[in-house]
Amino acid sequence: MTQARLSSRITHITGGGSDGWDVFYRARRMIDAGLPVVELTIGEHDIRTDPAILEAMHGSARGGHTGYAEVPGTRSLRQAVAERVTARTGVPTTEANVLITPGAQSALFAAHIATCDPGDTALFIDPYYATYPGTIRGAGAVPQPVATRSRNSFQPRAEDLEPFAPGARSLLINSPNNPTGVIYSRETMDEIAGVAQAHDLWLISDEVYDSQVWEGEHISPRALPGMAERTLVMGSMSKSHAMTGSRCGWILGPEEAIAHLVNLSTHTTYGVPGFIQDASVFAFDQGAALEAEVAAPFRRRRDLALQILGRQQAVKVIPPQGAMYVMLDIRATGLSGEDFALQLLEEHHIAVMPGESFGQAAAGHLRVALTVEDDRFAAALETLCAFAAARV
Amino acid sequence: MTQARLSSRITHITGGGSDGWDVFYRARRMIDAGLPVVELTIGEHDIRTDPAILEAMHGSARGGHTGYAEVPGTRSLRQAVAERVTARTGVPTTEANVLITPGAQSALFAAHIATCDPGDTALFIDPYYATYPGTIRGAGAVPQPVATRSRNSFQPRAEDLEPFAPGARSLLINSPNNPTGVIYSRETMDEIAGVAQAHDLWLISDEVYDSQVWEGEHISPRALPGMAERTLVMGSMSKSHAMTGSRCGWILGPEEAIAHLVNLSTHTTYGVPGFIQDASVFAFDQGAALEAEVAAPFRRRRDLALQILGRQQAVKVIPPQGAMYVMLDIRATGLSGEDFALQLLEEHHIAVMPGESFGQAAAGHLRVALTVEDDRFAAALETLCAFAAARV
Repeated sequence: MTQARLSSRITHITGGGSDGWDVFYRARRMIDAGLPVVELTIGEHDIRTDPAILEAMHGSARGGHTGYAEVPGTRSLRQAVAERVTARTGVPTTEANVLITPGAQSALFAAHIATCDPGDTALFIDPYYATYPGTIRGAGAVPQPVATRSRNSFQPRAEDLEPFAPGARSLLINSPNNPTGVIYSRETMDEIAGVAQAHDLWLISDEVYDSQVWEGEHISPRALPGMAERTLVMGSMSKSHAMTGSRCGWILGPEEAIAHLVNLSTHTTYGVPGFIQDASVFAFDQGAALEAEVAAPFRRRRDLALQILGRQQAVKVIPPQGAMYVMLDIRATGLSGEDFALQLLEEHHIAVMPGESFGQAAAGHLRVALTVEDDRFAAALETLCAFAAARV
Repeated sequence: MTQARLSSRITHITGGGSDGWDVFYRARRMIDAGLPVVELTIGEHDIRTDPAILEAMHGSARGGHTGYAEVPGTRSLRQAVAERVTARTGVPTTEANVLITPGAQSALFAAHIATCDPGDTALFIDPYYATYPGTIRGAGAVPQPVATRSRNSFQPRAEDLEPFAPGARSLLINSPNNPTGVIYSRETMDEIAGVAQAHDLWLISDEVYDSQVWEGEHISPRALPGMAERTLVMGSMSKSHAMTGSRCGWILGPEEAIAHLVNLSTHTTYGVPGFIQDASVFAFDQGAALEAEVAAPFRRRRDLALQILGRQQAVKVIPPQGAMYVMLDIRATGLSGEDFALQLLEEHHIAVMPGESFGQAAAGHLRVALTVEDDRFAAALETLCAFAAARV
């Protein structure tokens, strides 16, 4: 009995070849085996969702919000998102500009379905969040990385984008950025907007880290002149409210695009649990204080990291302006990011992500997540620096 | 400022043209305006999720299961699904055959991405659940309906399938069936399996109503000889446990297919909330008694419907063997399903779905959901019959 043939699309989602995730899986196995690994790989808070939010969720479910919720999202959550976006960006936004999705990953996928037909080219910036190329492939489009440079702090320049823009349908950006921690400057955003307009691209803007800004200002490109009509923004409760497991995110965009995306949701996910949406409204109602509380540990550890890194020279740092990571340039050691990370794990039981996991542009770099408590984090970073110094 | 162009795929998901959903939306507007409409359109229970299940969900969330859950699903839920399927179908099934998805709609979409490349033909049976063609279009494939006949109780025959099978990649079936309430016989399933094997098709089997069997036996085609390797089964907590709003379903399939579908999930949905999965395990642990309790009202109302319909001749019934609907043939009135339904709504404030909402094969029929309490349901059905009798 032979299995019927799967689609070429699904069997090629992950591209193939080593992608630097060996370190992650090796660390997982060590943890499962009971070894004391300092886990600085993925972007998950070291706190859980606030109990008050969970009580709100329970209250909604007990109150009977357990049937199908409206597919576009509940009116109250769409309005809450619209009000937040209007207040933060100045772009007039109503519920008709908002679709609630089961997480921002789902929103990213939907945005590529909405903008690309099968075979169309979708651009994304390298280094990148690990799922980007697979998300584009899963949507049947062709992923085209646009490499940025460590010396430009990984901010894309118009000259980086121009060669790839003709004929492409979309450009995916992410600021505050994972993995680099960089926030795109106004100049960068202006150049991106210029390229998008010149080549009639949709701009797909992943802004899930918009509550984690340590330095400077997060600019949503949807607020730039002429961009609201060609920008789809992804947001989420995950990072801002430590609700990663609740899978509640959204897409913002022009009304017509959102209407079509609602159709897509009807045929792909059929909405988000009503009790989770009610919990999200409750979370927003707590205001900026709760978001600041969730962000505080990352801000503190980021400052700690800069202090520690400032006392040595073996490792160079791309100063993180936002998000929950710090990107280190370890090229002076002569090691690849992957070799460095594997040796560090082996010798010191410290797990960090090789830059190569996030694309070729981040080769020779490491991404260190700010996700363990301060003392352990500081000790691990000191060890990492000493490890590098011994190899420079 | 003009909006950038959306993909042809997303702007054509719904096909266009009248689809008989006018009745549904008109009924909604009447309800919103405070009119007392008897709502027999959609497949939503008139009970809420059992409070004990909600307590289990809250316990899991309060216990800390609020971070990212494993993308393939928690081990305990995958095992619970595998055990249930093994017990019900006899097909040896392990967690490696199971992917947890945010609802069966999401599973349906994923199954078409997994089996069809863009432009490939995907077959489905007419009459059909309303999202089927749009789901296939959303996946970039080409939907091809296969019409069945009212006189065959809408059971597909090999002769119905054969003309469309050559070159197709998949065939989507649904038994117990929405909208017809028919359960495919062993003979039907054997013919379907024969066609799938002869033409190397994937069989995509939507079995979300498998706990609502009123007569005869539900046969999962995955249990037929040679079919486990070419069948993907959709299941869900929605109908069996009145958990429609929890969005928790699954795909069963060959291990290799599931492994690729896990990759797809990583890039499209990134898993299902852990607390919802824990609630689902709790629900399964309650055993058959809870499922029978959830199904009981539909069984009762189905019997009631057959009694009422047996006392008249204006309306013919396709006897429902399963699911939460009864399909009526009103062609003797000379009205289309849509005209009948609109007039019934206007004159008697009773909302039912025109057969045309579910494809051309169900023209001149009505789908009546068994979803309001018995007395109101019986009175509405009596009124419907009298309305028909006056027009025969």
